Amino acid sequence: MDLWYTEKHSENVGITLKATRTLFSGKSPFQQLDIIETLEYGRMMLLDGLVMVTERDEFVYHDMISHPALFTHPCPKRVLVIGGGDGGSIREIMKHATVEEAVLCEIDGLVIEKSIELLPSMACDIDGSNPRVTLHVDDGLAYIREHQDAFDLILVDSTDPIGPAVGLFEEDFYRLVHGALKKDGIMVAQSESPFYHAEIQKNMYRNLRNVFPIVEMYQAFIPTYPSGLWSFAFASKQYHPVRDFDKARAAARPFHTRYYNEDLHLGAFMLPTFARENIAP
Amino acid sequence: MDLWYTEKHSENVGITLKATRTLFSGKSPFQQLDIIETLEYGRMMLLDGLVMVTERDEFVYHDMISHPALFTHPCPKRVLVIGGGDGGSIREIMKHATVEEAVLCEIDGLVIEKSIELLPSMACDIDGSNPRVTLHVDDGLAYIREHQDAFDLILVDSTDPIGPAVGLFEEDFYRLVHGALKKDGIMVAQSESPFYHAEIQKNMYRNLRNVFPIVEMYQAFIPTYPSGLWSFAFASKQYHPVRDFDKARAAARPFHTRYYNEDLHLGAFMLPTFARENIAP
Repeated sequence: MDLWYTEKHSENVGITLKATRTLFSGKSPFQQLDIIETLEYGRMMLLDGLVMVTERDEFVYHDMISHPALFTHPCPKRVLVIGGGDGGSIREIMKHATVEEAVLCEIDGLVIEKSIELLPSMACDIDGSNPRVTLHVDDGLAYIREHQDAFDLILVDSTDPIGPAVGLFEEDFYRLVHGALKKDGIMVAQSESPFYHAEIQKNMYRNLRNVFPIVEMYQAFIPTYPSGLWSFAFASKQYHPVRDFDKARAAARPFHTRYYNEDLHLGAFMLPTFARENIAP
Repeated sequence: MDLWYTEKHSENVGITLKATRTLFSGKSPFQQLDIIETLEYGRMMLLDGLVMVTERDEFVYHDMISHPALFTHPCPKRVLVIGGGDGGSIREIMKHATVEEAVLCEIDGLVIEKSIELLPSMACDIDGSNPRVTLHVDDGLAYIREHQDAFDLILVDSTDPIGPAVGLFEEDFYRLVHGALKKDGIMVAQSESPFYHAEIQKNMYRNLRNVFPIVEMYQAFIPTYPSGLWSFAFASKQYHPVRDFDKARAAARPFHTRYYNEDLHLGAFMLPTFARENIAP
């Protein structure tokens, strides 16, 4: 059988991957979850038919949602991840010795359960083995409402602004995140493709600027995401990701990163003109 | 009819685009040429079944093969493009007032002819209307052998190292290019995807380092190319693309660029770790 999985990135373009088998397919109260085995990208998790992570290119996303903020904040101790039930972001956070506690707040327990079972290279620190990690199967909004002034970093590792994540792109949510951060805290959120999602970006960055004094976009290349060019929003109360970045500390990191490095940290903020224009104030 | 064009980037992954019609399909002595109309990316040119350019994302490739070298060299006057029969590179070169003559040396006259006819937004300066542009339908190797010490910049706007372009990735060719450049000349060549083509890059950059004292890789994101992450080799006799870059001159450019800008010029050389590792000496 010649099995191909095609994700349409719009009505008229998509990526197609040869697959060998479906490892899991099921419906949670929140969404459809599928994990399939592909030949080129290894195991791949889909939520409502959209690629979330693959084993081959997840290193880019997880390096880039975590290390830029972790190396900008001078001493991150308490970190919250909203979403990110595959565990990849937590795995990267755990590489930072300053971090005393990382909390994962994922709305969908099935994502966590199946990641532990089928994506162990990502879920290695959310399987109960790491005492610095706490899991909450809960709505991110509810959780941060009850945990104000609590975190150095909050990473919003969400799906697209359709389905369960729609509220995570709105100003009210960013106000709650702002409150849940300590006085010098930083939020990072995935912010879609500058090539395909100009309108979403425009609204999202306007909302963020209404709440945070420092808001910058940075880019990463993720081959299985629409267009291959992806972006993250860096929203901060005090530290600027370029001006306050301690390049020497990042260069001396005691672990290997296949995507992130101290030069790329700076380069990621140097955007193509069209991406700048998407979010021009 | 629901018509989709799928380009496989390997045996197991590809991009798929909804198409409406074929504008041209024919065989030259060198290769199969197809130009089709897609809904998401506009008109698309294929050589031997591989996407060369599309109307929607060609601005990235053509900005990035041309402007980094044009803004690094203090006064580029004579520029040679090898390949590039669609005319997009020549169009960007023509935006630089210092350039007195640009020569296009394309082996396949059919590519030029059909680009003028069907891709006029790219071919606008190779249609005979621009007195600063000279066309040669000729083998690039033969041409540069007869034009030594002649150019400030040579852009190798080639296909992949299979088919007619295979010789354009070899050390003998780079020696000829070196000879065809003036004493402070610069060569730029497309250098494939760091994500998929590590082995090609390794050989190509080793060959380049055997010939040029300054060899750097830089990146650009091109959604219709394999993986979306593409790269270019900057090989230079004297000027370094970061240390000798005149940022103020680039910032004061009298034309709009949708991808390139003076910050991105620098960021493009700040590579992901895995890309650096592909070409580590």
